Amino acid sequence: MESEQLFNRGYGRSSYNSIASASSDEELLDGVLMDFHTAEDDSLLDGDASPGGNYSMSNGGNAASSSTHLLDLLDEPIPGVGTYDDFHTIDWVREKCKDRERHRKINSKKKESAWEFTKSLYDAWSGWLVVTLTGLASGALAGVIDIAADWMNDLKEGVCLSALWFNHEQCCWGSNETTFAERDKCPQWKTWAELILGQAEGPGSYIMNYFMYTYWALAFAFLAVSLVKVFAPYACGSGIPEIKTILSGFIIRGYLGKWTLMIKTITLVLAVASGLSLGKEGPLVHVACCCGNIFSYLFPKYSKNEAKKREVLSAASAAGVSVAFGAPIGGVLFSLEEVSYYFPLKTLWRSFFAALVAAFVLRSINPFGNSRLVLFYVEYHTPWYLFELFPFILLGVFGGLWGAFFIRANIAWCRRRKSTRFGKYPVLEVIAVAAITAIVAFPNPYTRQNTSELIKELFTDCGPLESSQLCQYRSQMNGSRAFSDATEATATPGVYSAMWQLCLALIFKIIMTIFTFGLKVPSGLFIPSMLAYYHHDWFLFKEWCEVGADCITPGLYAMVGAAACLGGVTRMTVSLVVIVFELTGGLEYIVPLMAAVMTSKWVGDAFGREGIYEAHIRLNGYPFLDAKEEFTHTTLASEVMRPRPGDPPLAVLTQDDLTVEDLQTVINETSYNGFPVIVSKESQRLVGFALRRDITIAIENARRKQEGIVRNSRVYFTQHAPTLPADSPRPLKLRSILDMSPFTVTDHTPMEIVVDIFRKLGLRQCLVTHNGRLLGIITKKDILRHMAQMANLDPESIMFN
Amino acid sequence: MESEQLFNRGYGRSSYNSIASASSDEELLDGVLMDFHTAEDDSLLDGDASPGGNYSMSNGGNAASSSTHLLDLLDEPIPGVGTYDDFHTIDWVREKCKDRERHRKINSKKKESAWEFTKSLYDAWSGWLVVTLTGLASGALAGVIDIAADWMNDLKEGVCLSALWFNHEQCCWGSNETTFAERDKCPQWKTWAELILGQAEGPGSYIMNYFMYTYWALAFAFLAVSLVKVFAPYACGSGIPEIKTILSGFIIRGYLGKWTLMIKTITLVLAVASGLSLGKEGPLVHVACCCGNIFSYLFPKYSKNEAKKREVLSAASAAGVSVAFGAPIGGVLFSLEEVSYYFPLKTLWRSFFAALVAAFVLRSINPFGNSRLVLFYVEYHTPWYLFELFPFILLGVFGGLWGAFFIRANIAWCRRRKSTRFGKYPVLEVIAVAAITAIVAFPNPYTRQNTSELIKELFTDCGPLESSQLCQYRSQMNGSRAFSDATEATATPGVYSAMWQLCLALIFKIIMTIFTFGLKVPSGLFIPSMLAYYHHDWFLFKEWCEVGADCITPGLYAMVGAAACLGGVTRMTVSLVVIVFELTGGLEYIVPLMAAVMTSKWVGDAFGREGIYEAHIRLNGYPFLDAKEEFTHTTLASEVMRPRPGDPPLAVLTQDDLTVEDLQTVINETSYNGFPVIVSKESQRLVGFALRRDITIAIENARRKQEGIVRNSRVYFTQHAPTLPADSPRPLKLRSILDMSPFTVTDHTPMEIVVDIFRKLGLRQCLVTHNGRLLGIITKKDILRHMAQMANLDPESIMFN
Repeated sequence: MESEQLFNRGYGRSSYNSIASASSDEELLDGVLMDFHTAEDDSLLDGDASPGGNYSMSNGGNAASSSTHLLDLLDEPIPGVGTYDDFHTIDWVREKCKDRERHRKINSKKKESAWEFTKSLYDAWSGWLVVTLTGLASGALAGVIDIAADWMNDLKEGVCLSALWFNHEQCCWGSNETTFAERDKCPQWKTWAELILGQAEGPGSYIMNYFMYTYWALAFAFLAVSLVKVFAPYACGSGIPEIKTILSGFIIRGYLGKWTLMIKTITLVLAVASGLSLGKEGPLVHVACCCGNIFSYLFPKYSKNEAKKREVLSAASAAGVSVAFGAPIGGVLFSLEEVSYYFPLKTLWRSFFAALVAAFVLRSINPFGNSRLVLFYVEYHTPWYLFELFPFILLGVFGGLWGAFFIRANIAWCRRRKSTRFGKYPVLEVIAVAAITAIVAFPNPYTRQNTSELIKELFTDCGPLESSQLCQYRSQMNGSRAFSDATEATATPGVYSAMWQLCLALIFKIIMTIFTFGLKVPSGLFIPSMLAYYHHDWFLFKEWCEVGADCITPGLYAMVGAAACLGGVTRMTVSLVVIVFELTGGLEYIVPLMAAVMTSKWVGDAFGREGIYEAHIRLNGYPFLDAKEEFTHTTLASEVMRPRPGDPPLAVLTQDDLTVEDLQTVINETSYNGFPVIVSKESQRLVGFALRRDITIAIENARRKQEGIVRNSRVYFTQHAPTLPADSPRPLKLRSILDMSPFTVTDHTPMEIVVDIFRKLGLRQCLVTHNGRLLGIITKKDILRHMAQMANLDPESIMFN
Repeated sequence: MESEQLFNRGYGRSSYNSIASASSDEELLDGVLMDFHTAEDDSLLDGDASPGGNYSMSNGGNAASSSTHLLDLLDEPIPGVGTYDDFHTIDWVREKCKDRERHRKINSKKKESAWEFTKSLYDAWSGWLVVTLTGLASGALAGVIDIAADWMNDLKEGVCLSALWFNHEQCCWGSNETTFAERDKCPQWKTWAELILGQAEGPGSYIMNYFMYTYWALAFAFLAVSLVKVFAPYACGSGIPEIKTILSGFIIRGYLGKWTLMIKTITLVLAVASGLSLGKEGPLVHVACCCGNIFSYLFPKYSKNEAKKREVLSAASAAGVSVAFGAPIGGVLFSLEEVSYYFPLKTLWRSFFAALVAAFVLRSINPFGNSRLVLFYVEYHTPWYLFELFPFILLGVFGGLWGAFFIRANIAWCRRRKSTRFGKYPVLEVIAVAAITAIVAFPNPYTRQNTSELIKELFTDCGPLESSQLCQYRSQMNGSRAFSDATEATATPGVYSAMWQLCLALIFKIIMTIFTFGLKVPSGLFIPSMLAYYHHDWFLFKEWCEVGADCITPGLYAMVGAAACLGGVTRMTVSLVVIVFELTGGLEYIVPLMAAVMTSKWVGDAFGREGIYEAHIRLNGYPFLDAKEEFTHTTLASEVMRPRPGDPPLAVLTQDDLTVEDLQTVINETSYNGFPVIVSKESQRLVGFALRRDITIAIENARRKQEGIVRNSRVYFTQHAPTLPADSPRPLKLRSILDMSPFTVTDHTPMEIVVDIFRKLGLRQCLVTHNGRLLGIITKKDILRHMAQMANLDPESIMFN
């Protein structure tokens, strides 16, 4: 696997070198008085003599032009050159070059044989294949998780005697009344009290049910946290901050591996079933990304190229959102707006395809038993009125405030966990939170039931068949839609207790979600956030209802409120509107949704520009260069580059007068990841850039394979060996590991342009020159530090792990 | 208007200069043997002494550090510097810098007074304001166009006696039966024959109607083409190729001006009403972009910055598609996938907002009288079956083939028009096409009626109230849904004649659309393309119907077929699926649509990778660097840069030893748009880049304002004036127009990277260096020429106008 990658790279480099070999005399132009024109040396441009010609390059050309008698062993690929260490930043430009080189190689071979042609076809289609597989796997896993979580969630309350593997709803399939009020009237379904004590009513059975509920919740939570702790520490949390970081070009080995996938799938089911205030939506994105990563290993095109792999991951995250909400378009937009860094159009198409495949598979599995992609399908299509925009915007304001508050509180809590001893006992913490959640949740039917079921109930408009307590309320308020077997007199207490319970549920969910997000179990916050606001619309609804008899759809307010809250927390906009609209099928309500979500974002941004994911990225100190954050300061590249005044001089290599020993001294004495190569110390003119990892590997490789490489062997990066005294040892040619097209900016370049270049091209480092002379270097981390400094943050608090 | 732009720019430059003034002695480092480190000169990095400090810079600093006794008049903004000529490419990086500088200036002033604070708030909100206005205007104009086109279209057939300004449908408002068959039974509506001849039936009245139909069609067409020819030549065509080019950073003055807007609005109505085979969807995008452009003149933030203006245009094009199809999300994706070049997330949000506002306004105007955003709302929600994917994919294949054929045929015809004498008579051509269209269209009811009406009819499923001939067919085929007052025996002839007419209509529409697209009238091709395929599903439908009794929804096939055709022609994917799905409200049918559209794209791409818009861009020779097309060749920057071998040397300026006369000689003798500035001819080290336009303006300005500037005045780009003999005339300082951070690449840089940089950063030119010395220059046009050369096209055929 490694060797082909390297082969491509070495191949590409050497071919570029051979084309430009005529210009490789690095001092060609030195001291020569030239005319107004610089590059009239025809041989320099010899490639131009045959425009459109075939540069598909042979290594032979290099050997032929080599004037020394060395075996150019180093023009062969060196194993390990071009790979990355863990927790390093990738170089997008280099990766994309590598891929195009690979592509060209396959294309040029294509006509040689039928086999090569098949291979090229396979290669061309592997992109679609890998996203199809990812979509299939994500859809299937989401289906399994949905079914398992449903079953285990109901296990906390009782079992189905006729078939143990049925959940409450499936168990009561025969009796059609599976709504909230009639849930307990199904004969096959036995609560734990009925099973153990033999009685369904009374305080004894209530306590028994309460105990069993808490017992199962604690058991699930303990199992989840233990599994994560023992097998896959990366399986905790929502995963979206890390996925954003990985997609922006960072290497976190194992974060998307098979162990993480397995443990995350299992613990996600456990965590959801334990009743913790978390959603399965964020983790589903992580699961989908794991699938994408694992399938990408089947295709060398993706497994050996970090940039290409990230294209698959972008598509996978779209598939993840697609199955989490049944929203394929929303998934694509989520991937585009929220997580992806490099999102070419090809990825857009593939993401959409993956999202569709995943949604299609999930629909075929049909975990919700309604044969719809849409989870919370709302039936109402009543138009909304223009004056309603005001309460919608108000909902947006509240959503924004809630988002800002949630982010602050959650980050403060997580920072505390990170910095104090308290974070040393994750298992204990999870069990404590689970215990509190279970104990507080059980008495209130709104917190006891499944979160998604609750949202479904809140979103749904009251029909005559609806039996929940909320609808009794509504039927009373509206007067016209009286509930069939509930008189107005009996309805009132039900309504007030429902409102009371909802109030409590809201407060409880808000508090618990703050403590839950960031626990060492898989946890998402989409659904809790959406839930958190369901309540508010209530009062608004009441208010408006008193105005007119034909009342406003309360479900719509719940929907808009939920979107506003989620918007406040995540600061998503378009993708959120599309997700909610796909989630509910309410094409008519885009304008209210948009109004609320935009307001929520603006209000939230007024209190702090970061969404919860960005906040967690910063908390964890990942080197993430946010594309949304604008750099508005007037600093220049010369102020950011290293070396700073007072620092030791920039570690550079000269192109032909270092020995192996010198090189190793430089490498040992510094910890930089790469070194600029210059013509000579006198001229300081830049030749190229060599990576530390590549140099180390190349020297080791040369020692093993090439004879006569000793400590005082001369190292040269030029095309031709320098003229050496007769008795000197054999020189070592390192041109093949030299990047001869490093990015440079001048010292006068405003940092805003530099930041832009880094973002758009995905650079790892950039060299700074002044009038053609090398001055310094700027790395991605320098930029992040500088940005933190400009924002008056302590740059040292941004610790990169 | 011009002056503030310049002020910002001059300001920014000079401030950068003042910060870096200590390092401005360009020869500081020359010939000095330095240590391993280059930049230990503390004064060079003096900005670093106060990190996070305020660089909000005063011009005074510059004057203070100036060691000469000159009035630094040129540090003041020079009127005209920083603007662009017509048909030139903009420099995105420079524009964005300018904007940030402006932003900083406003921010730093903000705290000075309440007025400044208000101004800063206004500035911050102007982005939202301008997209809101654009959305409002686009929605309103689209409503007016829809109503007017409807009315004029019906005018060809007759008038409403009760109210002349009513169209056929509105006229017959009272009688509820406005379906196809009962159209003629409305008493207020008089056909021309009834009015003139006094009789409704018979061959005489048929001929009269035929004549009047043709007469009006010709009158409308003639009026349209004359208006375009006389008042606004840019108002012709669909406009999307030009908008794509403009958005990619090209200046075409007047293309989005008020005249174009006015004439395009009027002629679009005329062209649609004339019955030509064109749609109003593409032109609506042009109209929306004109609105966006005009409103952006109200806000200096946008009017004075070409890059910012393009953000508004991106949003406007989303609004255009939004009103054209009633598809706000589709509009945003269209803008993202098809037309936009630079699409930051902020633009995504604003585009979505503009699209929503526009759609909302259109819904309020309610031109279709159904109070829906959705134009062709389909009522059916029958699920589709997995085996149906096969015919859907087949539809995709046909769509791709049709697209490839259409593009070739249309481009061949347009090229003929461009190259032969034939193109000299646009008015004649339009009238001829209109005459043929009208004459052929009238006898066939499917071509006679409005295109959108036809599509609506084809998309709709047959209900018992449906009276079109197609439904008689269906009711007979299915047996079960017998049409109420049509027996099976009488239905058959109607069905066969309907099929026959549809066949003819299909062939006719295909042929006419090829000739129509590219005429000198506003013409879009969305709807014709969608229409073109409605027919094919017919046979498929029949086939499947024979298999099962519960038949497949034929409207779905029409919808999928239309999407496949449009996909084949435009090569859109995600946006097209979303548009169709929003157009029809069929959330369930995303998977079939996606399958057909992707197949159509793949099949189409097999015959030629360009969509119709890219093909027209290439036909017109616009300098458009397509982000979708990958550059896969292995050429190096040194092979593409100019000067080529044998060319005259690169025209460069030296930083301090030219006179005004020398400078003018260089400018007069070359036609380049800019010149690199180097330290000296000996060293060839790059200092910066100066634009021709800026140099000319600066010299003229200096001659006017500064005394003592004569022909042999020394020109210098350095911070300090060079030491001159005592009797020499006063020197001219041009540092303020010097771009001190030009983009450079090394000669070894693979062209794929260079192309990537140009695309992503939106460069206009890039300098090529070798070991720190200037070798040559690569412009956007060089890259386009090189790409054409690599694709074995004649680069000279790509004529840039």
